Amino acid sequence: MLPRGRPRALGAAALLLLLLLIGFFQFGGDVEYGRPRGAAALDGEPSADRGGHNRSDCVPPRPPLPKCELLHVAIVCAGPNSSRDLVTLVKSVLFYRKNPLHFHLVTDTMARNILEMLFHTWMVPAVRVSFYDAEELKPQVSWIPNKHYSGLYGLMKLVLPATLPPDLARVIVLDTDVTFASDIAELWALFAHFSDKQVIGLVENQSDWYLGNLWRNHRPWPALGRGFNTGVILLRLDRLRQAGWEQMWKLTATRELLTLPATSLADQDIFNAVIKEHPRLVQPLPCVWNVQLSDHTLAERCYSEASDLKVIHWNSPKKLRVKNKHVDHFRNLYLTFLEYDGNLLRRELFGCPSPPPPGAEQVQRALAQLDEEDACFEFRQQQLTVHRVHVTFLPHEPPPPQPHDVTLVAQLSMDRLQMLEALCRHWPGPMSLALYLTDAEAQQFLRFVEASAVLSARQNVAYHVVYREGPLYPVNQLRNVALAQALTPYVFLSDIDFLPAYSLYDYLRASIEQLKLGSERKAALVVPAFETLRYRFSFPSSKAELLALLDSGSLYTFRYHEWPQGHAPTDYARWREAQTPYRVQWAADYEPYVVVPRDCPRYDPRFVGFGWNKVAHIVELDAQEYELLVLPEAFAIHLPHAPSLDISRFRSSPTYRDCLQALKDEFHQDLSRHYGAAALKYLTALQQPRGPA
Amino acid sequence: MLPRGRPRALGAAALLLLLLLIGFFQFGGDVEYGRPRGAAALDGEPSADRGGHNRSDCVPPRPPLPKCELLHVAIVCAGPNSSRDLVTLVKSVLFYRKNPLHFHLVTDTMARNILEMLFHTWMVPAVRVSFYDAEELKPQVSWIPNKHYSGLYGLMKLVLPATLPPDLARVIVLDTDVTFASDIAELWALFAHFSDKQVIGLVENQSDWYLGNLWRNHRPWPALGRGFNTGVILLRLDRLRQAGWEQMWKLTATRELLTLPATSLADQDIFNAVIKEHPRLVQPLPCVWNVQLSDHTLAERCYSEASDLKVIHWNSPKKLRVKNKHVDHFRNLYLTFLEYDGNLLRRELFGCPSPPPPGAEQVQRALAQLDEEDACFEFRQQQLTVHRVHVTFLPHEPPPPQPHDVTLVAQLSMDRLQMLEALCRHWPGPMSLALYLTDAEAQQFLRFVEASAVLSARQNVAYHVVYREGPLYPVNQLRNVALAQALTPYVFLSDIDFLPAYSLYDYLRASIEQLKLGSERKAALVVPAFETLRYRFSFPSSKAELLALLDSGSLYTFRYHEWPQGHAPTDYARWREAQTPYRVQWAADYEPYVVVPRDCPRYDPRFVGFGWNKVAHIVELDAQEYELLVLPEAFAIHLPHAPSLDISRFRSSPTYRDCLQALKDEFHQDLSRHYGAAALKYLTALQQPRGPA
Repeated sequence: MLPRGRPRALGAAALLLLLLLIGFFQFGGDVEYGRPRGAAALDGEPSADRGGHNRSDCVPPRPPLPKCELLHVAIVCAGPNSSRDLVTLVKSVLFYRKNPLHFHLVTDTMARNILEMLFHTWMVPAVRVSFYDAEELKPQVSWIPNKHYSGLYGLMKLVLPATLPPDLARVIVLDTDVTFASDIAELWALFAHFSDKQVIGLVENQSDWYLGNLWRNHRPWPALGRGFNTGVILLRLDRLRQAGWEQMWKLTATRELLTLPATSLADQDIFNAVIKEHPRLVQPLPCVWNVQLSDHTLAERCYSEASDLKVIHWNSPKKLRVKNKHVDHFRNLYLTFLEYDGNLLRRELFGCPSPPPPGAEQVQRALAQLDEEDACFEFRQQQLTVHRVHVTFLPHEPPPPQPHDVTLVAQLSMDRLQMLEALCRHWPGPMSLALYLTDAEAQQFLRFVEASAVLSARQNVAYHVVYREGPLYPVNQLRNVALAQALTPYVFLSDIDFLPAYSLYDYLRASIEQLKLGSERKAALVVPAFETLRYRFSFPSSKAELLALLDSGSLYTFRYHEWPQGHAPTDYARWREAQTPYRVQWAADYEPYVVVPRDCPRYDPRFVGFGWNKVAHIVELDAQEYELLVLPEAFAIHLPHAPSLDISRFRSSPTYRDCLQALKDEFHQDLSRHYGAAALKYLTALQQPRGPA
Repeated sequence: MLPRGRPRALGAAALLLLLLLIGFFQFGGDVEYGRPRGAAALDGEPSADRGGHNRSDCVPPRPPLPKCELLHVAIVCAGPNSSRDLVTLVKSVLFYRKNPLHFHLVTDTMARNILEMLFHTWMVPAVRVSFYDAEELKPQVSWIPNKHYSGLYGLMKLVLPATLPPDLARVIVLDTDVTFASDIAELWALFAHFSDKQVIGLVENQSDWYLGNLWRNHRPWPALGRGFNTGVILLRLDRLRQAGWEQMWKLTATRELLTLPATSLADQDIFNAVIKEHPRLVQPLPCVWNVQLSDHTLAERCYSEASDLKVIHWNSPKKLRVKNKHVDHFRNLYLTFLEYDGNLLRRELFGCPSPPPPGAEQVQRALAQLDEEDACFEFRQQQLTVHRVHVTFLPHEPPPPQPHDVTLVAQLSMDRLQMLEALCRHWPGPMSLALYLTDAEAQQFLRFVEASAVLSARQNVAYHVVYREGPLYPVNQLRNVALAQALTPYVFLSDIDFLPAYSLYDYLRASIEQLKLGSERKAALVVPAFETLRYRFSFPSSKAELLALLDSGSLYTFRYHEWPQGHAPTDYARWREAQTPYRVQWAADYEPYVVVPRDCPRYDPRFVGFGWNKVAHIVELDAQEYELLVLPEAFAIHLPHAPSLDISRFRSSPTYRDCLQALKDEFHQDLSRHYGAAALKYLTALQQPRGPA
């Protein structure tokens, strides 16, 4: 019996073993996420860190990072200030990301203008951006009384499932005031932890707000315990749509608003009320994914243990000025990306093939065709450079539509910032200024404006940041950016070192009207240019005073000593006596400062660095048959300054003149192609020997 | 029977289960490292990524990251250029690190001076630095003929086991030309993969160099296959010492040098020869830990697959100018840290308690005692700020010792860079200049010097970078940095906007000798100061010419219009006629430019921003009984410039004058404390009503 019995016993044991192993693996399967499926987790430490300390031989893996999977991110953004925040957030995401990204931006018109241009010129590979009109969403949330500083825009996160494309199943939703300190794919990977019923991933609120005991009669919206913070959300859009999310939140909100006067924390109150009612919808996320730096934050409980913070949330209305024992640490992380050179993020993703951003291929091809041995290589390269452009960097009131209004257009870099206050005092009208800055300088500029009472008070000055790249100053690209952003029918094309006569703004508007500029007369109004070589200088309050200073040798006509042909055609002798506008003829090298309709020809962007950049524009105006009319009461005075770094760097370069000559030649060739025989005169004028003007 | 049989069967089953589970766990234990213990791995992908794709429920974990473990890093570094590289490397390490670090730096004297000051002023928490004298190690490697550009210093990695502290068991060794893109603890964690016999972890060489077929008669040193690259090394120092590493490599090197004329790749040739002989010593590391961007790199095989690069190695002699299809990508990563604001890395490590860096606690305490509501809070804060200082930013020849030599000392920020060339033309002697810059500006400065023939040619100008922090210009801290770095017995304490007379350097040395300055006479030699308000200006070549310009109104005595008392005591009328040096008396607000022995009193660092910073220094000289001797042939001329941003920002501030007054008062209190009744005269002088000087 034994011989037969043994196999039987062994068979039974084998069966038992099999069953046990199956059971073990199933148990192991549940261990994978460290908790029974569907149960909530609210861990201080992300699973990877626990993995490191886990001494068992079979560790729970961290959720797989999706290699090359397209990740979707939705952000609501309105106005210039939020747009700046969004850029910093996006920089932090791009810095760590290894996946292609698709940003879904719900924006007002202002933010859309800013961000569309920004992303278009940023040209980051493997980044797509879609815009959704916040205006259209307003009716869906405007019925909710709301006291939060984010206004209606905060509430728009509620309507994302209906707003985003119907085939979009998952999205990460972010507030503009968060900063990433890790790869966003790790956050995306947490979708894998959702049970079948869970639709929304959130981090617990790190304050006692929802406990309702902050002050007497503090009545927050209902929430599970401390509630959840909605600065970082994982949304299963597919399941939300299926579950009838829209009715769900509207029903809850309507009911709560019967007893509560308004939302205090916008969408967050409503999300929490819904979750309180349907706790199974939520997948709690590890606290490191939304470290909240509000005024009375409890975040230290989270970050004091974690070695690895993933996302910082500046959710105090004080933002970076919030008081908090460790705020310097977090501020440093934020400043890292605030000042980070966004151009460095234009790097491709290895191992994730993706189409190049629009326009990039063309630029790449043109760059590849350049000859590095060409003496003018730097010029060619600079001409082809696509600069990242952030228009309306600061809040700005568009000027009210007026038929004869005129915007002062100019460009500058950091070394001319101190001109802005004086310029504001001389020109009360609208200005459109392009600033050539690094990302860090843009922040210095911001602080400079904030610290200046004169500048802060002005609503009609629009600042457009063009980010530095390459060794040569792209003067005409800058002028074109400022020109394109001017919103009045006329523009005064000036330079930053000139202070206009105090009366110029009024006088120009009157002249435009009298001369019927643009409508009946195709003309450029010339503002005669003067200069002082002295720092301490009392600005003339009238033409008579100016003439007296000229006679006493305190003022000169502009560049009288070094480049008289630049302004000689203005005919200063005639101007002295003139009572009415007079017409002058174009001549070689003429480069007056002019007032023209906004739709005037653009500047030729091939002129980078210094030299001939305005001359070419005046040639273009003349070729297009603009009359040149000198205004008898107009003037602007150039203030002295040390030569800029760019000028000194390149004036000394021996190849510089040769390259400028090459650019001029090409400009004339293109001119002939455009205007045919009519353009001959410019070439002839150039070749004529000049008298001792 | 059944009732009794069941319990027994269950008992047997339970025992079986127990045995099975134990077996399972043990099996799991071996799986932990993904391969049998002791076997080598040479993976393109780090194990974490493979883990991500593993779909089984129990995945091999990545090696545990050692939370709060102190990690040791050794780097050999010589000279100013390598020191700059090292800083960039360290910034990249610090950016991602979460562990305390101990850097072991093998340096020459120059690098030690630079780096000791840098780390001391950087004050990064949880970073220790030890220095080892490269000079002492030279005899141990100088017998090896070597053709590599790193010279003797490259070979010093071989002697680290004997050089580093005997109780140090493990160290990561890095070349200065690597950049981290990940947490160095992940690299440290790879020590856990070493078998009992392995002593050194290396990445395979990513070129065909060691295959020996690059050109005819190319005879590389012996290596296993492609060999290994020594830009990134994990060293088990304990085992190396035990295994007799010193004899081992010396034996191998000596033997190979019988047939090979010299090492071509320094230490790397010898490491490879030893490994070829003892292949069991090496633990190959994943290629992402040393992505080599040499000229004919095969690195693409590594990075084209990996989504995650860990360390970039610029191991071409061309460094960033290396040609490579994807070099822009890598360059961006490098530039990220090159331009990164190192101040932002002064953040503490949460969850890893570590002693504050030396001096930091004191500063923190003082800062904590400040009253944020105090109107002068910004001044107080700025005074307490410890600026990161990088002395000798560019290569510099110390001046040969000469008993009467004099160094021009000055400080500047970016907006005065264009003064440097003119200054070099006027002053052929040594200069010590402190530059107040951001990290990004320091790189612009570097390019500016490289692009200038005049500046590149000068070996006796030392540039010291003081990194910007805070809103006020720390003018006296900058002066003190420049002063402390002057290497001649005398210094000319000037300002960057002044051009000295062409003859001044020679004349000062002669005067110092004649007047026996310092040795027999405790005096400050006054260099009379003038100014021009014009840009275009022909510099006088003699005192006679200068006087003519003064008479014609082209020149003025310095600040004649706004602050005559600053220089009136120089007595310009007397100077006009003087043939020999003459003594003048101190008077209130006197601030001449002077020549003094190098050991003169330092500037008072409490004066930040603008105003009274030089005045206080002259008071200090007078209190210490320096004679003030005006030199009859000396002069310097101030060139005009636009007011700096800092000046315009604070001149307009209403609290500025009040705070300056408070600083003055405190200065006088300290003066009384130091000099007793003798200091009364300064207070009295200040309180006297002044005539219309």
